[in-house]
Amino acid sequence: MEMQSLQDLMIDELRDLYSAENQILKALPKMIKKATAPELKQGFEKHLRETEGHVERLDKIFQQLDASHRGKKCKGMEGIIEDGKELMEEDADPEVMDAGLIGAAQHVEHYEMAGYGCVRTYSELLGLSDVAKLLQKTLDEEKATDQKLTELSRQINVKAEKAA
Amino acid sequence: MEMQSLQDLMIDELRDLYSAENQILKALPKMIKKATAPELKQGFEKHLRETEGHVERLDKIFQQLDASHRGKKCKGMEGIIEDGKELMEEDADPEVMDAGLIGAAQHVEHYEMAGYGCVRTYSELLGLSDVAKLLQKTLDEEKATDQKLTELSRQINVKAEKAA
Repeated sequence: MEMQSLQDLMIDELRDLYSAENQILKALPKMIKKATAPELKQGFEKHLRETEGHVERLDKIFQQLDASHRGKKCKGMEGIIEDGKELMEEDADPEVMDAGLIGAAQHVEHYEMAGYGCVRTYSELLGLSDVAKLLQKTLDEEKATDQKLTELSRQINVKAEKAA
Repeated sequence: MEMQSLQDLMIDELRDLYSAENQILKALPKMIKKATAPELKQGFEKHLRETEGHVERLDKIFQQLDASHRGKKCKGMEGIIEDGKELMEEDADPEVMDAGLIGAAQHVEHYEMAGYGCVRTYSELLGLSDVAKLLQKTLDEEKATDQKLTELSRQINVKAEKAA
């Protein structure tokens, strides 16, 4: 991988995000199955559909940049999902598990917020305003998901606390 | 690991953060060495000192909770650092490398913001106000570091763009 320009760095980070999003697409159905609270299940289902849209946006961006999405496995997301799998194997109280699933999902969202924040900035600096707009849309959706998870955690954590 | 109460979940997440912070302590000196821009080197050095303080705060919290910090390896941070190592092995233009290092550090910060946000909320719900205050302090420092990195990225990325 050449890394001589900001565009090289942007494409490298976009590949990282492409790998991350596709790992999330595989992980979310397991999280939906494991969640107990209906509002959490619904939240994860909504985010699964959004994630499909994020991959489509990345596909469009790779086409616009005439670059391939291949060649990178995002190890950060791999580790975050591995931590989530360990949690899901625990023998946990259902409400405590829901609180844990929210925490796992917030690690996923924050990873993406960091990545999309970077590529949005790079694309702006490179004058690629169409690309920047697409990336900003996804960044806004990731932030909104994180905020909804925080709201949900206040409710579910309270329940988990009472169950203790 | 028992996971029957919110306190169990909180201790599990605190161990995850303890592992994460200690991995960061090992990774930061390599990033300081690799960075070129003096303001980035200084920023990383400052954050190294802060990170030592975060570990001390976690030690205090484990003492207060009469719990051990052992027993968990944070795979999320392991993956994020692995991604950073791959970047540092690239044959990159120095300013592009600086921009990449900022991106890597922002992934680290966001991981921690997610984790500290969770345990801060759990400790509040459990009525552990001393613990919550310590965790809020660290969370505020992680957020401030992330913001400084964003400001720095606007300057360094612009330079990296001109170097392209």
